[in-house]
Amino acid sequence: MTVYALENSNGIAAGIARGIGDKLVQLEYKIFPDGESYVRVPQKPEGVAILVASLYPNPDKRIFELLMSVEAIKALSSEPLIAVVPYMAYARQDKRFLEGEPISIRVILKSLETLGLDGLVVVDIHKPSVLSEYTSIPSRNVFIDRLIAEYFHPKMRNSVVLAPDVGAIERAKRVAAHLDAEYDYLVKERDRVTGEVKAMPKNLTVEERTVLIVDDIISTGGTMALAARTVLSQGAEKVYAACTHAVMVRGALDLLISSGISEVAATDTVPSPVSKISVVPAAVEELRSLLEELL
Amino acid sequence: MTVYALENSNGIAAGIARGIGDKLVQLEYKIFPDGESYVRVPQKPEGVAILVASLYPNPDKRIFELLMSVEAIKALSSEPLIAVVPYMAYARQDKRFLEGEPISIRVILKSLETLGLDGLVVVDIHKPSVLSEYTSIPSRNVFIDRLIAEYFHPKMRNSVVLAPDVGAIERAKRVAAHLDAEYDYLVKERDRVTGEVKAMPKNLTVEERTVLIVDDIISTGGTMALAARTVLSQGAEKVYAACTHAVMVRGALDLLISSGISEVAATDTVPSPVSKISVVPAAVEELRSLLEELL
Repeated sequence: MTVYALENSNGIAAGIARGIGDKLVQLEYKIFPDGESYVRVPQKPEGVAILVASLYPNPDKRIFELLMSVEAIKALSSEPLIAVVPYMAYARQDKRFLEGEPISIRVILKSLETLGLDGLVVVDIHKPSVLSEYTSIPSRNVFIDRLIAEYFHPKMRNSVVLAPDVGAIERAKRVAAHLDAEYDYLVKERDRVTGEVKAMPKNLTVEERTVLIVDDIISTGGTMALAARTVLSQGAEKVYAACTHAVMVRGALDLLISSGISEVAATDTVPSPVSKISVVPAAVEELRSLLEELL
Repeated sequence: MTVYALENSNGIAAGIARGIGDKLVQLEYKIFPDGESYVRVPQKPEGVAILVASLYPNPDKRIFELLMSVEAIKALSSEPLIAVVPYMAYARQDKRFLEGEPISIRVILKSLETLGLDGLVVVDIHKPSVLSEYTSIPSRNVFIDRLIAEYFHPKMRNSVVLAPDVGAIERAKRVAAHLDAEYDYLVKERDRVTGEVKAMPKNLTVEERTVLIVDDIISTGGTMALAARTVLSQGAEKVYAACTHAVMVRGALDLLISSGISEVAATDTVPSPVSKISVVPAAVEELRSLLEELL
């Protein structure tokens, strides 16, 4: 097998290459003066090709690089090509919230499919069902709940795992199971007198407990910061925040720390100062499982 | 029919809407803090939908907006959707110049096809055969040679039309035919003594003649500037430069003017200070022809 890496995915790609015992090949890459990207696959794959491409930052540029790389590799070899996409861009635009909207993630999946991609591994995608709903590419979604639980386990005392909203409750439940902790989700409430918005746990009390708030993506950090301030005001002893994808736009980390969160930890699907947890072991496991299905 | 415009294509879209007597609808558009784009089609098409999307500047962002818009419009209506793409990005990456390269234009065409696009109108695409080779979407390529000839006709005296290289000779031939002028192409030569590179006309002399150099794209302006300097040193009376797509990266126009070119003119497929020639009449003509084929 040969593992290829897009420019911004060398770290995870190197880990995956080590994990499956194969060599890593960097794609050649440049940008023309008019802003068009150029990629080239400098050597043919030996057997199955694995292409590692995280789609952040600059999601549109990264998406087109991924599509070009798939096109180029499929022209070089008739062996299967599997894309490992640690951070899948546009995964949150997974349905038409309003009439006239695109399902953006469908655009990516359909384009990958028509270019001949044979397999897809993603990490903790916002709604895993998109992988079966919008494409017939065989795929795996890497869950990272165990990795997050292992990372925070030494810090947890009388702990509760919180999802920032009801839609994310399954993730909190899975992390809590690994920690043998309780779990709940937060409900936003606006104080009728002061107008202040709070995010209150639905069922549990947090007083004198250690709280771990888990989400798939931290972007502006607003949701997490609000949740942290609320549970601290309710007497939580410490608040930690964990996410899979530290998209973290400018100022997000400052906002989190100033809200009283003791520590933020994320996986390395998106490079950031808080990307402390490697997804490589879990990704290699799912990649092996997909390879077994395909070969 | 309903004409939709991506943000950067309102001018041409308005012209097309007037030309076919239908209304123009702007797509809703925003960018999320993490750099992902959002588009929304604010009203359903009445009959055939026409989507105008020029893919410059920021080609990768524009490409993904185009794909998302196609996905959204196709979900709203079962009537045909035609995309008018005045400037098609990546059209020059139309073959594998080196092994391991992608055919980038194929990526765009295949993605449009799989999302259900029913018709495609492009303007002076680098190699028109890509439209039949890489997709089965019914299509038209708008030639703009007549428009360029009409623009420069009053300035031409004892004139010669030059292509900057042999690959572009057909364009020079077509423009020359409209001007009843001679045509030729330029051959690069390096002076063995001074090392200086010149671009000499292959067969014709340019002494005391008016020269019009025509190309599909001016990007850095280097090719055009070299050609202008050479023909002026050979005694050409005046040199004009014309192109279809004024991609014009930073400094290109200064380079052209300082090389002695009297005037640069381009069509409006890419907005620029030299985009003086409207492609709308020619585009509407081809659009009507495609509509007749589809309906």
